[in-house]
Amino acid sequence: MTSRFDGDAAGDSWRMPRSLEGAGAAPAMPAPSRRARVVVLGAGFGGLSAVLGLARAPVDITVVDRRNYHLFQPLLYQVATAGLAPSDIASPIRGILRRQQNVRVLMARVRGVDLQQRRVLFDRLSLPYDYLVVATGSRDAYFGHDDWEDVAPGLKKIDDATDLRRRILSAFERAESTDDPVERQRQLSFVVVGAGATGVELAGAIAELARHALARDFRRIDTRSARIVIVEAGPRALPAFPETLSAAAARSLKVLGVELRTGARVTAIDAGGVMLGDERIAAATVIWAAGVIASPAAKWLGAEADRAGRAIVGPDLSLPGHPEVYVIGDTAHVRGHDDKPLPGIAPVAKQQGRYVARRIAKLVHGVEPTAAFRYRHLGHLATLGRRAAVADFGFLRLSSWPAWWLWGLVHVYFLIGFRNRLVVLLDWFWAYLTFQQGSRLITGSEGES
Amino acid sequence: MTSRFDGDAAGDSWRMPRSLEGAGAAPAMPAPSRRARVVVLGAGFGGLSAVLGLARAPVDITVVDRRNYHLFQPLLYQVATAGLAPSDIASPIRGILRRQQNVRVLMARVRGVDLQQRRVLFDRLSLPYDYLVVATGSRDAYFGHDDWEDVAPGLKKIDDATDLRRRILSAFERAESTDDPVERQRQLSFVVVGAGATGVELAGAIAELARHALARDFRRIDTRSARIVIVEAGPRALPAFPETLSAAAARSLKVLGVELRTGARVTAIDAGGVMLGDERIAAATVIWAAGVIASPAAKWLGAEADRAGRAIVGPDLSLPGHPEVYVIGDTAHVRGHDDKPLPGIAPVAKQQGRYVARRIAKLVHGVEPTAAFRYRHLGHLATLGRRAAVADFGFLRLSSWPAWWLWGLVHVYFLIGFRNRLVVLLDWFWAYLTFQQGSRLITGSEGES
Repeated sequence: MTSRFDGDAAGDSWRMPRSLEGAGAAPAMPAPSRRARVVVLGAGFGGLSAVLGLARAPVDITVVDRRNYHLFQPLLYQVATAGLAPSDIASPIRGILRRQQNVRVLMARVRGVDLQQRRVLFDRLSLPYDYLVVATGSRDAYFGHDDWEDVAPGLKKIDDATDLRRRILSAFERAESTDDPVERQRQLSFVVVGAGATGVELAGAIAELARHALARDFRRIDTRSARIVIVEAGPRALPAFPETLSAAAARSLKVLGVELRTGARVTAIDAGGVMLGDERIAAATVIWAAGVIASPAAKWLGAEADRAGRAIVGPDLSLPGHPEVYVIGDTAHVRGHDDKPLPGIAPVAKQQGRYVARRIAKLVHGVEPTAAFRYRHLGHLATLGRRAAVADFGFLRLSSWPAWWLWGLVHVYFLIGFRNRLVVLLDWFWAYLTFQQGSRLITGSEGES
Repeated sequence: MTSRFDGDAAGDSWRMPRSLEGAGAAPAMPAPSRRARVVVLGAGFGGLSAVLGLARAPVDITVVDRRNYHLFQPLLYQVATAGLAPSDIASPIRGILRRQQNVRVLMARVRGVDLQQRRVLFDRLSLPYDYLVVATGSRDAYFGHDDWEDVAPGLKKIDDATDLRRRILSAFERAESTDDPVERQRQLSFVVVGAGATGVELAGAIAELARHALARDFRRIDTRSARIVIVEAGPRALPAFPETLSAAAARSLKVLGVELRTGARVTAIDAGGVMLGDERIAAATVIWAAGVIASPAAKWLGAEADRAGRAIVGPDLSLPGHPEVYVIGDTAHVRGHDDKPLPGIAPVAKQQGRYVARRIAKLVHGVEPTAAFRYRHLGHLATLGRRAAVADFGFLRLSSWPAWWLWGLVHVYFLIGFRNRLVVLLDWFWAYLTFQQGSRLITGSEGES
């Protein structure tokens, strides 16, 4: 039975029963039926920006996420490589929004949208909306090779990162305990598929881990002999960056001892390693960073989608024919001023979230907004190991040390929550001083062990 | 096939192949055949104390653990209740021992011990020893009700704690999203079975979480209305403490709104709640803190064991008939000066580890040690929520605030690693200032979601 999780049916039902609320604790608010109901699906960069942008608007917001935390995804690879702990880069959504009185948080998985009835459908609930913002992000895409998912996991969630951390650290442990030199070399080989920002940062971090943080931890093996390979089907690393920075990144990777194999296509992956055409690379750890596909939002909305599954929206980010439904972030196909689709990065999602919030705030005040969404490109940043990074701000291109420091500042600045910022700074400072990485825990199980 | 992970068969085989080690990096050491081989099973408080105590002895130590980290178990309940992150209280064993040249670390699961051949058996390896220290700890015991393990998980490992954190936080989420008041109250009910230190600390922390940290996070439910029950079969809380402190603990629990049910025996547990005889407590979260059983070390050693599975050892902690084999910590049955078995707490294990290390150091120098092990009781400490604790040092008994501050100091002082101490202090200070808890992440999955 679908329960109606309404704000209109039996009065303010989602605040009922009052008996549970504690007398006098509830803020005085006008009846919700007078206020527009905004439902935001997804509490990533896009969804959260939309919610925060509506803080002063006379609306009742419900933000829905499958998980209870907002994730600072750009630093996820540091959790996978034991540089940061999960709670350093993830913040409970309820905590972030605790002071915003016009929002409530629902932890649930979306099953569909009823555009006619204007309701979002969940397993046991449905939720009415006047405005809907869909910001459900993307997931790893294996391009028809879904069987690769188990042997070459991706990196989108906290659990992916702790799983990958377990795989990487366990490989060193297995190399230490085996007597077979072939198996030892296989355990010490890491293949990253895809040389976008995630792939490059991840490979650089694994190289640092092997060359520095773990170097004195083992007695039988020399972790510095680990082989780290990035396989990229395209002609260069960081294809979204200008060519000069791709070249700088390639040089930095070389210094870190990472093999960059461009123009190479993975044809098979199994538990023993990868095939690049006829060449086999034996590797116990294979990581997928080769591409993403949008969440099934286009399907829920019956919308036209591009090849990456992104819903094609109008210049105001609304669904064609449905000015009350917006799609933003990784889930939306929007063209930039160069007519290329905007990339799936945090700044795009955040700007779109703010744009949609301003738009909805105007609409509820009876003002018809006219401006189309325009993306302001702030630049690209990627980090490469302990000291190097590349940055592209259009007017300014940096590589090496200055870019690294900038990268650190920018990422800590945008981390949500003062505590997280402080702890991340402390972790980094500590790692910098000691070459130690504090979060080298192998947690979870592999089923057999 | 069992590979011989030896130090004697083909020369220094565990340091081979040299080609992997990097030229010149290996420290000059005498041939291992001249040095006694010490194998330590388990890197908890006992095992680690033994290893550190042998730092200057002319021995080659191998410390073996199933996991790659040492766990500060007394604070595990704070991970389960979102006060601390896993990496705050766990430290990689290799990192702790990185500077100790006479030790290597092996991550493996023990399958048995061959006392005649003096070898420890693993799945694919075996390891010879001249001295063996067994410190493999304990696990939760369900006293013939193993089917309760799934519905009432215990708290011994990091993964138990993150699982419990997920269960506790998810219960509040489900209470928020249900419309059924009976189900809501069930989700807001928590039962802790067992009123030892773990049970009392856990119940207090859940109460704090519900009354303070989460109080403003939810809109529909009042988390302060959560019901927290401790069920204890014995006549009082903290049975190992003096009665006056049990009474102080009971008062503190009452202030926190925890129901303490002494003299009550759990007769059934299922996914819906627990039965106490004819009384049913509907509760979505049931936690087991009612007792532990020793690791199967007594079985590996063919030793006599007590009812809790602990191997009965001599006054020098050695296995009867095997002066080269020692059993310490939660795995050993040793009687104190009052003729009662020593409790399974960190100070006992640490003192035993140090004792065994001194003993082995004398033996390898050809000195026959004579002194039997004597436990020096340093006291008991337990904390109760945000401000209260009880302490018993024999000469000094504290409760309330002074005990709380003492508890904090003692625990942070004994945490391994400077970084961990600093981060834990920061987390606590932050939580103290803001009533926030930084690690409120629901990670992992429940299978269905």
